[in-house]
Amino acid sequence: MDNDISIYLDKNSSKPLYIQLYEGLRKSIEISKLVENEKLPSIRNMADTLGVNNITVVNAYKLLESKGFAYSKKGSGTYVKKVAEETNFEYLEDESMDLMTSGILTLSENSINFASVSPTPDLFPVEEFKQVLIEILERDKGKAFVYPEINGYGPLRSSISKFLEENYSIIIDPEEIQITSGGQQGIDIIAKTLIEPGDYVFLENPTYSGAVAAFQSRGAKIIGIPILEDGINIETLKKNIKQYPPKFLYTMPNYQSPTSYSYSNEKKKELIKLANENNFFIIEDDFLSDLTYDGENRFPLKAIDEFDKVIYIKSFSKILMPGLRIGILTAPRKLFKSIIKAKHTTDISSSGFIQRAFDLYLRKGFWKEHICNIKKDYKEKYELMIREANSLKKYGISFKKPGGGLSLWLKLPKELNAYDLYNECMKKDILIVPGKIFFINEENKDTNWIRLSFASLDKNQIKKGFYIINKCIESIKYNKEDRTRYVPLI
Amino acid sequence: MDNDISIYLDKNSSKPLYIQLYEGLRKSIEISKLVENEKLPSIRNMADTLGVNNITVVNAYKLLESKGFAYSKKGSGTYVKKVAEETNFEYLEDESMDLMTSGILTLSENSINFASVSPTPDLFPVEEFKQVLIEILERDKGKAFVYPEINGYGPLRSSISKFLEENYSIIIDPEEIQITSGGQQGIDIIAKTLIEPGDYVFLENPTYSGAVAAFQSRGAKIIGIPILEDGINIETLKKNIKQYPPKFLYTMPNYQSPTSYSYSNEKKKELIKLANENNFFIIEDDFLSDLTYDGENRFPLKAIDEFDKVIYIKSFSKILMPGLRIGILTAPRKLFKSIIKAKHTTDISSSGFIQRAFDLYLRKGFWKEHICNIKKDYKEKYELMIREANSLKKYGISFKKPGGGLSLWLKLPKELNAYDLYNECMKKDILIVPGKIFFINEENKDTNWIRLSFASLDKNQIKKGFYIINKCIESIKYNKEDRTRYVPLI
Repeated sequence: MDNDISIYLDKNSSKPLYIQLYEGLRKSIEISKLVENEKLPSIRNMADTLGVNNITVVNAYKLLESKGFAYSKKGSGTYVKKVAEETNFEYLEDESMDLMTSGILTLSENSINFASVSPTPDLFPVEEFKQVLIEILERDKGKAFVYPEINGYGPLRSSISKFLEENYSIIIDPEEIQITSGGQQGIDIIAKTLIEPGDYVFLENPTYSGAVAAFQSRGAKIIGIPILEDGINIETLKKNIKQYPPKFLYTMPNYQSPTSYSYSNEKKKELIKLANENNFFIIEDDFLSDLTYDGENRFPLKAIDEFDKVIYIKSFSKILMPGLRIGILTAPRKLFKSIIKAKHTTDISSSGFIQRAFDLYLRKGFWKEHICNIKKDYKEKYELMIREANSLKKYGISFKKPGGGLSLWLKLPKELNAYDLYNECMKKDILIVPGKIFFINEENKDTNWIRLSFASLDKNQIKKGFYIINKCIESIKYNKEDRTRYVPLI
Repeated sequence: MDNDISIYLDKNSSKPLYIQLYEGLRKSIEISKLVENEKLPSIRNMADTLGVNNITVVNAYKLLESKGFAYSKKGSGTYVKKVAEETNFEYLEDESMDLMTSGILTLSENSINFASVSPTPDLFPVEEFKQVLIEILERDKGKAFVYPEINGYGPLRSSISKFLEENYSIIIDPEEIQITSGGQQGIDIIAKTLIEPGDYVFLENPTYSGAVAAFQSRGAKIIGIPILEDGINIETLKKNIKQYPPKFLYTMPNYQSPTSYSYSNEKKKELIKLANENNFFIIEDDFLSDLTYDGENRFPLKAIDEFDKVIYIKSFSKILMPGLRIGILTAPRKLFKSIIKAKHTTDISSSGFIQRAFDLYLRKGFWKEHICNIKKDYKEKYELMIREANSLKKYGISFKKPGGGLSLWLKLPKELNAYDLYNECMKKDILIVPGKIFFINEENKDTNWIRLSFASLDKNQIKKGFYIINKCIESIKYNKEDRTRYVPLI
């Protein structure tokens, strides 16, 4: 890198250092101070030159790569790519966060990842799966690899129908089940089936950005309805229904992402009533109902869906294994023809081999013991998280006990900016998620939150993580004191 | 079924009997002569009442089910479902054909399926896959089931890059490869990445209906360019480029579906030139290049893509196993950010487990022997097909030897209507595909073709099949003689 490139990093800025560095390098590439195939400085050199942590440089380089501005040669280093197309900046932080939660932006070996909501491999039922996979190959031979029906392997749809009844008292005819390649594909297929450009689509605010992206890509007009501790804000919802009649409302009624809030039973019933009276669908994304730790019965909306208004999406990525890419959606019969057509244009069908294996896994009842195990394991981590999070209250940080799920949603006092904390933690090898990225058009909204997930952490990491987060808050507090006076709220 | 339901089937109509029956039953359901949960007559009773083949009734019932107008209880029979939504009739025959080619509309045990282009399970490398699957589970344990990178498992992208170079002299950086869940998903992701509503998209005419559906679903304006025996009609293409500047052209340069025609080398070069001069992309769907039987070197467009205009989609469903759902697409770097985003909103990523297994399968070089085996096997069937198809020339039926692929595309004389033949064959338990369904807005087009595929047939079935097809043509010929005089063209 020739020396007339000056990259200035503002350590007091609320913008993460690695993103500042990414932007600086990107600019140098665009104005051709860095040229195609030029080698970037080594991680260490760059870190030393700029006086930042190696991690900051690693992440900046990974971000450059993921954006197509750089490529890496194994054992050799990172090189410049020239890219014509413009980058969409609004989306940048959101995307970089996607990369983190899906584990692509990695930190060092001993980093602590409070961002990921993916379970750790040690919890996967690998042995049981190996058993069923081999059994399928011996039982079905080549047949295991033919195209299954578009809506899914028949026997699997039957055993899923049983699974839904036993676990969530959801009564569904196998003919009303569509097998999908994970929950996200369920969202994509619904978008293809229901959304006409210009349709209004309601989502909780904050919500899951993968759903927003899928709906926007079909030309939907996105409207965010605030979510409260006991579920969506019904009054605001009613106002918006009158003003912008929605095609559907996308909701996560139990342990909502990112807030981990759950709907009260009253609000669940109210929602079904509203959908029926105002004739819109409810897309229920259920990826965590199974993980309840406080004994409360938090049932899916689909279980009380007397008017057949709920399209129920179930992902098995969080409670089983992400790498399977198996999920389902159930929908009213009258939609099914269009859903099968949408699935066919999407990927013909999901892997018949995996479907056969999953069917056998369910029939052998392996899932019962597995869900017991992960619930026990997560419950212990959850209780530890609550204890540790209480230690943050002295800084004016508050949160609601979700009673289940894989994350805590913490409100920061205005003196403590979520991005400052995120940035400070990043320096110490701790990954947390600033709440802002989950909000729909976040202007003039109170977005000073952080999400801390424990899905992929062990107990020692949780303890150590909170110890460091405490330290980070302290150091921000003292840095700030010369500028603004810091007043703890307790 | 109460007796005042009269279903009239016109055996002289060009509309298949099972579709006439489906439409009749559907009407009775819509006007409530058949009510929700009413049991339909048994296959045999219905067949006897109407004086048709059991198969006709089986297919009509299957079609009712697939459309959501009926459901079946194992061992009990078929029952009526009430459906509010309207059915789109234009699409009907096309769809029912989708169900056939994907093997959902099954005929009896001893039916002969010239419609399916899916390889038979006995050709699948099951043992080798079992070996790599087990090896992966032992090597990676739980890691085998975590989320891979959105663009695909790194090592697999490297071994695919090598595979493409060794097999097709395509030089692609692993960073420019996106792993997809089969070829169809590649088409869907490209549609999401490139198409804005109102964009013009060019396709060969006739073409693959799954591509048309994916592009239309994104609001593209579809324009069909006739395909000739040596590739697309360049003159018509040039005219249309001037009049309707396309976002891209979707093409299958080798053994095109459904015609099995291949582009001449001149036309391949011409196409690359045109794309560069007029700045549109070429989507090359390569699913069969590997199956050449006449020694000709039919290279992919991507191999001569000097201007980086070709987006190359490779499906492994036909040459390996459909049930794997693994394919790839390669694209210019500047598109990659949007492609990764589209993949993420589509299904996050393809199964990491299958990707790891496929990587090992490629690294162990198993594919070399496998491709040899299937080529040898298909070549023998291909040559038999040619010999048998020659026996149809006496009826004025003509075709071009494709020199590869899995199908023959036969032109019928105007006296012999493709749907009559299709219908007649159906009665005799033979499945063939009328060419009409592959044409874009087929009005005033010469669509009197049939496609005969041998992918899932053995040699005896091919011989027997052609014997019966001969008989069917004879019987149509004699039926016709009282109406129109039939003149064989030789």
